[in-house]
Amino acid sequence: MKDCIIGVDWGSSSFRAYLLGPDGEILERREAAGGVLRVRGGDFAAALLAEVGDWLKQAPDSLVVMSGMIGSRQGWREIPYVDCPAGPAEVAGGLERVDWGEGEAWIVPGLLDESRPGRPDVMRGEEAQVLGALAQMPPGGGVVCLPGTHSKWVRVVDGVVQGFATYMTGEVYDLLQGHSILGRLMTKGAVNADRWFLDGVALAREGGLLNRLFTARSRVLAGSLPETEVRSYLSGLLIGDELFSALGEEEAEVFLLGAPALTALYEAALGKLGRTAVTLETDAVAAGLYALAQHLRRSEG
Amino acid sequence: MKDCIIGVDWGSSSFRAYLLGPDGEILERREAAGGVLRVRGGDFAAALLAEVGDWLKQAPDSLVVMSGMIGSRQGWREIPYVDCPAGPAEVAGGLERVDWGEGEAWIVPGLLDESRPGRPDVMRGEEAQVLGALAQMPPGGGVVCLPGTHSKWVRVVDGVVQGFATYMTGEVYDLLQGHSILGRLMTKGAVNADRWFLDGVALAREGGLLNRLFTARSRVLAGSLPETEVRSYLSGLLIGDELFSALGEEEAEVFLLGAPALTALYEAALGKLGRTAVTLETDAVAAGLYALAQHLRRSEG
Repeated sequence: MKDCIIGVDWGSSSFRAYLLGPDGEILERREAAGGVLRVRGGDFAAALLAEVGDWLKQAPDSLVVMSGMIGSRQGWREIPYVDCPAGPAEVAGGLERVDWGEGEAWIVPGLLDESRPGRPDVMRGEEAQVLGALAQMPPGGGVVCLPGTHSKWVRVVDGVVQGFATYMTGEVYDLLQGHSILGRLMTKGAVNADRWFLDGVALAREGGLLNRLFTARSRVLAGSLPETEVRSYLSGLLIGDELFSALGEEEAEVFLLGAPALTALYEAALGKLGRTAVTLETDAVAAGLYALAQHLRRSEG
Repeated sequence: MKDCIIGVDWGSSSFRAYLLGPDGEILERREAAGGVLRVRGGDFAAALLAEVGDWLKQAPDSLVVMSGMIGSRQGWREIPYVDCPAGPAEVAGGLERVDWGEGEAWIVPGLLDESRPGRPDVMRGEEAQVLGALAQMPPGGGVVCLPGTHSKWVRVVDGVVQGFATYMTGEVYDLLQGHSILGRLMTKGAVNADRWFLDGVALAREGGLLNRLFTARSRVLAGSLPETEVRSYLSGLLIGDELFSALGEEEAEVFLLGAPALTALYEAALGKLGRTAVTLETDAVAAGLYALAQHLRRSEG
């Protein structure tokens, strides 16, 4: 096979790879638990070869393009952030090549938004997802929400990332569940977009998150919240707080990009606030990495 | 000795006891690590005897009065909450006696505030501290802030607790320090009320805590926050968020009651917001337990 692309979304705790054909079509995909933080001795070349070596045998001239924490200080090489506003050309301009003796491999730079004094923001990996999602959005743009451990809210205008903000929603939920006094009350199971979840979302309107979190305990003690519903209620409190802050006076259309179980919760929460959202294809990162590879090929051709 | 009181502030992770003379004067005090959660096999009678048995020998007719999590489901016996508004008489009315074969011992009830729909609040232990602090406050009252793992903001009018709100500020700080991505950046040492702390306090004005927390990371990555200052900055963000929410349109005088290192931080943060605060004596709990014992003696006499 010729002119293929191997796109890799390599995060702290996850590894997703795509074998893409000359027109960007997904030929094969695979996932592994080999996140950046799990690579033994920092031998990223060996880890990559173990995961995609067979693809390279099939298509030896493939360009490898990698995004995510693989470009951080803890990764293969620290790649400088590109400043916002940034479109595909600016991100492509920040790609850096790594030598690994197996053909051409590049790492995507993260983005830096320094537009708000005292509150700079950074991302690594989501920029490739957002660039790949552009084709699914109207030309004028919108706001892309990528929910997760560190949710990102990304403003896109005319195909260019104007700026973004990070919310530690998923990480704070995990901390509370795993290590807090609230975690002791939480039964196992999935979070549901039920009335308790939506109750949490609505309560977030008044702000004061550090106080609202405690109501997950006091309502149980006062008999107005079943223990089995603490996890959904708490998720609603946190996602609601994120939404009220992120939406603020934002009137642009909201696009959701992430794991289906999570985007479904965000869609329900947005509905509670009277907003609609469009859920994007989760393979957007493959399209983004493909687009960046095309920039490389054009600049080399 | 006759007519002494043994006052015990028995929390989840702490045990503080006072031997009080007939007029409430502190004759002796001691602290131990034997919090409620550490008492082996739930044998609270044995634990109490081990800590204050010598005092009971000196003053066999002492009344023992205990406040805190000792009155919770995890404690000696679960004592029902008393509803707000509640003054000393209402709290005394909820005292319950436990049998332990060593003279008279009573447990102080916690307080329940159900005045805000959907946001009930509870406390166990702080009510004894606030009752003891009344003598240090003007007759009209004020707002008592008890900073800590679960900070309490207690509105007092004419010696009666009108209501209160809990903020999980200290617990969230501990979670972030001990288990989050921010914790990896945090160097060891005390939190200082320095410019980084105050910077965090000021940034809290805009709300959006889940986003502001991430700035403790992004500012380090962007070079605008020294790693050695992450812990002070993060503390400022959290305490600031608590203050903006708790103060709201509250114009009453603020009284701080807690460990000196912590009340100093709150005083500095309040100063940044243009507010002053009066710091109360930390032995207030002894005065509160004494006052409740006097109610008991009067009702028995």
